[in-house]
Amino acid sequence: MSNTFGQLFRVTTFGESHGPAIGCVIDGCPPGIALAEGDFTADLARRATGRSRHTSARREEDAVEILSGVYEGATTGAPVALLIRNTDARSRDYDRIARQFRPGHADYTWWQKYGIRDPRGGGRSSARETTMRVAAAVLAKKWLAQRHGVRIRGHLAQIGDVLPRSHDWDAVEQNPFFWPDAGQVPELEAYMDALRKSGDSVGARVRVVADGVPPGWGEPVYAKLDAGLAAAMMSINAVKGVEIGAGFASVAQKGSEHRDAMTPDGFRSNHAGGVLGGISTGQRIECSVAFKPTSSLRLPVEGVDLDGNAVEVVTTGRHDPCVGIRATPICEAMMALELMDQALRHRAQCGDVGEVAPRIPAGEGAADG
Amino acid sequence: MSNTFGQLFRVTTFGESHGPAIGCVIDGCPPGIALAEGDFTADLARRATGRSRHTSARREEDAVEILSGVYEGATTGAPVALLIRNTDARSRDYDRIARQFRPGHADYTWWQKYGIRDPRGGGRSSARETTMRVAAAVLAKKWLAQRHGVRIRGHLAQIGDVLPRSHDWDAVEQNPFFWPDAGQVPELEAYMDALRKSGDSVGARVRVVADGVPPGWGEPVYAKLDAGLAAAMMSINAVKGVEIGAGFASVAQKGSEHRDAMTPDGFRSNHAGGVLGGISTGQRIECSVAFKPTSSLRLPVEGVDLDGNAVEVVTTGRHDPCVGIRATPICEAMMALELMDQALRHRAQCGDVGEVAPRIPAGEGAADG
Amino acid sequence: MSNTFGQLFRVTTFGESHGPAIGCVIDGCPPGIALAEGDFTADLARRATGRSRHTSARREEDAVEILSGVYEGATTGAPVALLIRNTDARSRDYDRIARQFRPGHADYTWWQKYGIRDPRGGGRSSARETTMRVAAAVLAKKWLAQRHGVRIRGHLAQIGDVLPRSHDWDAVEQNPFFWPDAGQVPELEAYMDALRKSGDSVGARVRVVADGVPPGWGEPVYAKLDAGLAAAMMSINAVKGVEIGAGFASVAQKGSEHRDAMTPDGFRSNHAGGVLGGISTGQRIECSVAFKPTSSLRLPVEGVDLDGNAVEVVTTGRHDPCVGIRATPICEAMMALELMDQALRHRAQCGDVGEVAPRIPAGEGAADG
Amino acid sequence: MSNTFGQLFRVTTFGESHGPAIGCVIDGCPPGIALAEGDFTADLARRATGRSRHTSARREEDAVEILSGVYEGATTGAPVALLIRNTDARSRDYDRIARQFRPGHADYTWWQKYGIRDPRGGGRSSARETTMRVAAAVLAKKWLAQRHGVRIRGHLAQIGDVLPRSHDWDAVEQNPFFWPDAGQVPELEAYMDALRKSGDSVGARVRVVADGVPPGWGEPVYAKLDAGLAAAMMSINAVKGVEIGAGFASVAQKGSEHRDAMTPDGFRSNHAGGVLGGISTGQRIECSVAFKPTSSLRLPVEGVDLDGNAVEVVTTGRHDPCVGIRATPICEAMMALELMDQALRHRAQCGDVGEVAPRIPAGEGAADG
Repeated sequence: MSNTFGQLFRVTTFGESHGPAIGCVIDGCPPGIALAEGDFTADLARRATGRSRHTSARREEDAVEILSGVYEGATTGAPVALLIRNTDARSRDYDRIARQFRPGHADYTWWQKYGIRDPRGGGRSSARETTMRVAAAVLAKKWLAQRHGVRIRGHLAQIGDVLPRSHDWDAVEQNPFFWPDAGQVPELEAYMDALRKSGDSVGARVRVVADGVPPGWGEPVYAKLDAGLAAAMMSINAVKGVEIGAGFASVAQKGSEHRDAMTPDGFRSNHAGGVLGGISTGQRIECSVAFKPTSSLRLPVEGVDLDGNAVEVVTTGRHDPCVGIRATPICEAMMALELMDQALRHRAQCGDVGEVAPRIPAGEGAADG
Repeated sequence: MSNTFGQLFRVTTFGESHGPAIGCVIDGCPPGIALAEGDFTADLARRATGRSRHTSARREEDAVEILSGVYEGATTGAPVALLIRNTDARSRDYDRIARQFRPGHADYTWWQKYGIRDPRGGGRSSARETTMRVAAAVLAKKWLAQRHGVRIRGHLAQIGDVLPRSHDWDAVEQNPFFWPDAGQVPELEAYMDALRKSGDSVGARVRVVADGVPPGWGEPVYAKLDAGLAAAMMSINAVKGVEIGAGFASVAQKGSEHRDAMTPDGFRSNHAGGVLGGISTGQRIECSVAFKPTSSLRLPVEGVDLDGNAVEVVTTGRHDPCVGIRATPICEAMMALELMDQALRHRAQCGDVGEVAPRIPAGEGAADG
Repeated sequence: MSNTFGQLFRVTTFGESHGPAIGCVIDGCPPGIALAEGDFTADLARRATGRSRHTSARREEDAVEILSGVYEGATTGAPVALLIRNTDARSRDYDRIARQFRPGHADYTWWQKYGIRDPRGGGRSSARETTMRVAAAVLAKKWLAQRHGVRIRGHLAQIGDVLPRSHDWDAVEQNPFFWPDAGQVPELEAYMDALRKSGDSVGARVRVVADGVPPGWGEPVYAKLDAGLAAAMMSINAVKGVEIGAGFASVAQKGSEHRDAMTPDGFRSNHAGGVLGGISTGQRIECSVAFKPTSSLRLPVEGVDLDGNAVEVVTTGRHDPCVGIRATPICEAMMALELMDQALRHRAQCGDVGEVAPRIPAGEGAADG
Repeated sequence: MSNTFGQLFRVTTFGESHGPAIGCVIDGCPPGIALAEGDFTADLARRATGRSRHTSARREEDAVEILSGVYEGATTGAPVALLIRNTDARSRDYDRIARQFRPGHADYTWWQKYGIRDPRGGGRSSARETTMRVAAAVLAKKWLAQRHGVRIRGHLAQIGDVLPRSHDWDAVEQNPFFWPDAGQVPELEAYMDALRKSGDSVGARVRVVADGVPPGWGEPVYAKLDAGLAAAMMSINAVKGVEIGAGFASVAQKGSEHRDAMTPDGFRSNHAGGVLGGISTGQRIECSVAFKPTSSLRLPVEGVDLDGNAVEVVTTGRHDPCVGIRATPICEAMMALELMDQALRHRAQCGDVGEVAPRIPAGEGAADG
């Protein structure tokens, strides 16, 4: 099921970075969701490279064609198929490395697995694939917002060792770094320029949250909501770590500090990150994701070729010095896809469970930070 | 699929903490694996409570009965069913809290989801469930070791803010903390005694590694090996974070530092943690897992009852002051189950791909640390 | 997924005919269904051998123990696990044939697949496994009846070349043949006695119907309701054919005859068998199932042994001369399991689709025949 | 999973009859299979309408574009995506019936399920969808033939009440009816002309067989090979019945007649149809499928409209008077997809089971009839 995400809201993606097209099929989509091709523009633009000089110079126009599943402006319950033609795929940039295993890439592992590899632009392992995750999530976000009032937002929470000095959600969409402190943007630009000049790259941390998720979504054992989120985030290229709520900080916490007291007026804190026992509490869902620095550098590195000989690998193609920057919309997309799937799974099993216990307000954990 | 783990080597667990029994069914198990009831003893003892005074005082005898799938000492390809009767379930300890939502537990979320809850000992949400993960993994570990020479090991890597001062795999099995520095054991005992006296608890970090995994296991997009490991670990009770390889440290790394150089003699490092593009590299698989401190404390906390009234919650049952301690065998089990499943999935799709590219030795990344 | 049936209401069975026990785990069960161990008695008795002299003489007591998923008399949403100990398994009857491949049995194919086989009573391939299908379906039938008014009934529709001369549902449960014409029972008893005396066996046809299924269950392409029913029925031991509605008679029908006219007062006929385009019409679901005659006969037959030598195979164990007779409750069970699963899948995707078009009464197709 | 077939070789189709395109994604495809766009031509032409005056007059050019998963002429292990643009979709033919529920069609059921429907040419419920089944099966047939020598063939076995008088596989591909007796072709042409003149339609039976399937494919309980075939065939539009081997004739057979004797030189017969206990025997796989007559007729019939009013329904679009005729390649395709999936599942679980028992030749059951 490598290319499918979800059990009931099932997104199957296809296409290589430099093949004729990329696309996806969304099976199990509820009928009656209004959908037009223009609905994809905003989120795809947020993810697209070429948005600023700090991300890869490749221009992705990303015009989505709806091939299936929509009639007179609404989903029909049939599979929704989306297609984007690849228009700016300069394969010549990649010819030189077709016979090299680049360190830090999937070249070697793909070859060992399949005995064959499409080397053009990373083929199927390119971040180009994530375009369709964002496109598919447009549907999920719509349904979640309209039926349940769920709102999903993300921002960059660290680049290298730079941390935000303040938090303002409004700032996030106003700068090319999805950074929550507008005042730091010049500093980040200087940081990125220096990085690019050095030929090196750096990692990043993305925080993504969902507000408005009702209590009860998720499943208690293997299909926990947090387990699903962990898989969803770790399935994004370059991710090396996932935290829910307090995450690794829990290791040094005392139980009396970590557990979130409950009162009739709301929870007192949200170290749990909105999930207890794998099921949503009604508080904000909190997720933090670590992105490694890209391995595609102008700086040379020891590598090996197809014949097992040592080679020096230098990457000259177009690459982001910090892949984490444009990962923010991708993390949002994966949270939307996981929540959508859990919502349908919850409805399947528990669709007739009424409100049998009082709901506790999200409380302080949902403060707008 | 809440109670099933795996796509091809499918483990379905059942049973509540204080019900008549717990058990599991393992479907898709390869035939011909030697198996006897005694094979479960060692791993279940490692996980069992009652192993030292630092874990819960409940005695779990955990005698496994094989109900299905084994004939004349070997698996037949039929589902392997395992059963453990619950013998020391003192339900009276839990009666008082049947009408309370304990902060930090699944009480509230389970109630909101299902409208009903088995309150005896945490019911299905108890860590008792993990016994069957360890039992099922006995089969996976056997097959992985015999067919592929895979070896899976774990140890505690942090309790609260205490870190190991040295690393010795031999020490790990010699002390009740799975701690890799024997000299620190008296210090840890004092730490735990003070913690117990205070009525509080603390978090922990577990490190689990697999050596001998061949290159090529895992899938490149959603079913990445690391995504599967993240879900596997996050599905364990009390886990709040998962890292692969360098994990969150990648955020502050430069690409020139993070990417693992490759030479014909081996990899130069293993920041990737043995996975690139979702597929194993042949290096050690490295995973780090954060456990929160248990919320079951003698110290009172604000809670809410079934009617929405404020209550003071105090837990008096038997509970580990650090649930992370005995999580080490559980993390090993989940890594075994994920690797086993990926191995079968790899064989299904790529069973006839020969060795088409030279294999690079695991190299320095597999040093015995 | 060989031992699991269903996508959302997932039934996993385990156990061999002569092993210590058989059982099942039902995952995804809606919470709040009243359930006690006595609820299984009636349906298991209907399926049990030993009910009359016309079915196998083995006594199956089939006392069900509920191991999981029920608290204070109702399902909790946790997996429901059921266990039946095998008490009357005389393995000595089967020792002689352990090294023979019996024609018409799974001996040879199981051996070729797994390289090993539990020969005691057919092991996992015994009809004993179907006991748990009937047990699991008790839950499905309850939910379908209580939430949707669905009623599932079956009867024997042919034994050898004997057909019912009349149809009376009340008669079906009054005779050991599930036969709808009480007047034919003496004739059937004589037929079966002669058959037993001859050492031979005969095939049968079972008809199973569901009334009260609302329009809209099922899925339009691969997961059609009729495709699911076909797989469900064909998964029962000894089944060789499945028909929906007019079935094979459609081959010789004209379109003007087959298509079921629709009027505001109801459908004019039900050649479709209650399914159009894979989705229920609201009419009676009609299914017909062909059972082959058992191959376990006193009459000798050419066979082969483990070494590839010719042998004469004679079966002396306890076997039904017409396995189709007690298949009626099993067919009902499989229809219940498929409908239950489709109902949950429908709710997941379309739970918020209102009644947007007028419902057409079931009409003449639902006449009580 | 409505639009996906298979567990490991997973085919997901999309597109409506009169939408912009139809397509499919094949996930889990083994790498290294040679594939070019021309490989689809022959099988798609066999399925295409417009092949003779006896099938619908709509011209389907069916030019396949490979969008993903193939590099330098071979599959890479990435998802294979195929696309066919719809070029001859005259929606005007269907406008009149957009507000009518046509008897015998999915109009009413789709509306009850989804509350919305794409009425153009049957939308997703059109047989147009089966084009992609045939395309996907091209890959499966190639792999099955090359790796295992499996050969899959089908023919029409009955139209209305006309039966073949002789059997010649070579004749099948020489006439537009896939009919095994060349001498009857003029008779069939006259039959179809009379039928078309009358405005009516008729049902048909298709037989499809696979030779060369090794013993051991299939699974013993719910995922039986025959259960999978039954679902596969019943998922084709207009199918009302499926038989394996002797099928419904088994009902009147004696056990001494039905069971297929085994000798070291081969099986004596093949009433089982190549499957025992859900697992292949090594004999020919035999499957028979009943197709209903199409309900799209010039002859008027009682129907109902969206408002629940009685209407007279007359169909004037282009429709086959016997949809079963061009179903032959579709039945072959579904058998190929099921066998491919079972082959991969078998390899996953039992890939290291050697030949532990002697293989019995297919014997008389595989005679070329």
